[in-house]
Amino acid sequence: MFTLCYAQHTCALASHIALIDAGAPHELKRINFRAMEQQSPGYVAINPKARVPSLITPRGILTETPAILAFIAQSYPEARLASLHDSFAFAEMQAFNSYLCATVHVAHAHRMRGTRWADEEASFADMRRKVPQSTTACYELIEQGMLKGPWVMGEAYTVADPYLFTIAQWLEDDGVDSSGIPRVMEHRSRMLDLPNVKQALAEEFAA
Amino acid sequence: MFTLCYAQHTCALASHIALIDAGAPHELKRINFRAMEQQSPGYVAINPKARVPSLITPRGILTETPAILAFIAQSYPEARLASLHDSFAFAEMQAFNSYLCATVHVAHAHRMRGTRWADEEASFADMRRKVPQSTTACYELIEQGMLKGPWVMGEAYTVADPYLFTIAQWLEDDGVDSSGIPRVMEHRSRMLDLPNVKQALAEEFAA
Repeated sequence: MFTLCYAQHTCALASHIALIDAGAPHELKRINFRAMEQQSPGYVAINPKARVPSLITPRGILTETPAILAFIAQSYPEARLASLHDSFAFAEMQAFNSYLCATVHVAHAHRMRGTRWADEEASFADMRRKVPQSTTACYELIEQGMLKGPWVMGEAYTVADPYLFTIAQWLEDDGVDSSGIPRVMEHRSRMLDLPNVKQALAEEFAA
Repeated sequence: MFTLCYAQHTCALASHIALIDAGAPHELKRINFRAMEQQSPGYVAINPKARVPSLITPRGILTETPAILAFIAQSYPEARLASLHDSFAFAEMQAFNSYLCATVHVAHAHRMRGTRWADEEASFADMRRKVPQSTTACYELIEQGMLKGPWVMGEAYTVADPYLFTIAQWLEDDGVDSSGIPRVMEHRSRMLDLPNVKQALAEEFAA
């Protein structure tokens, strides 16, 4: 049994969907970001980075979305959530996930998490003004080549799909013009049609 | 045969060391950052993100250090550069690498790459002032728990070791007080004693 520590509207949704996709027994533990619960002693004992997601497993605790996604795919090979016997294809998927984690998510985070990297209000405002440009540049790269279609890696659905879907939840708020990225938007719609995705969203936003 | 596109003083060093560790046949292609070669049409055709590293393989081009490192480890299992038959241990290593990529490297990058996330000189100055604090917080987490010792993952050397070594090249310039992180500094010294690390550095800084 796994326990996924998540918060609403965060990248933890990707791991949540992947757990359902894998058929992995799991329960959810909601961390209340409005109450700053991620910085509580109880949660910091789980994840000293004070972030979500954290996946509590019988072996220990895992963090970082790309690592958790690969772990789920490798732990449930029958679910076929990654190319597990082709190290090049696996690496291409991991490269996509790493780009989402270290570039797209980071560009997005400058809209609301500026205190990680600066101290002045004027800097935060400058960062916020830049987010539409920096995130649009990311989505254009995804649109023009990284998203192979119909799924991220091509014909086969992988854990990269819930990750792109999750990050793409934020693009309108980030100021990205969705009309310029039709393939990304089609992917998002295709994901939203999946029962597992509907289930994950319903669970996260249940009372 | 692989070709690693790298630049001096960048995170590409981690993949370079790992290629030597794996005994993987490879050649180096230096990208001249001073001449902005990473934004040249020739290089953008290799890597549309205009970053290093890029690993040119017979199957195609890989980017993103965590993905390249896992690929090298999986492609050369006899080199024992990762726990390939233990998905939890593999995930722990990947979580460490993801943290370096998406948090430590990103904190560092605000010292010199502020134009990615803002436009005003005052913001860049604010970001630069914050780097010692943000990077020190990262290294304290590594010091206090993530670095198991003697190697990152404990008794076994993995591709996480050249990655930490590489990122840790920058810590003094980032304003981190090295006296507060003795275990990280010991790890860096231990790495610098390895012939493969000496070789990689010599190759990157040869005329």
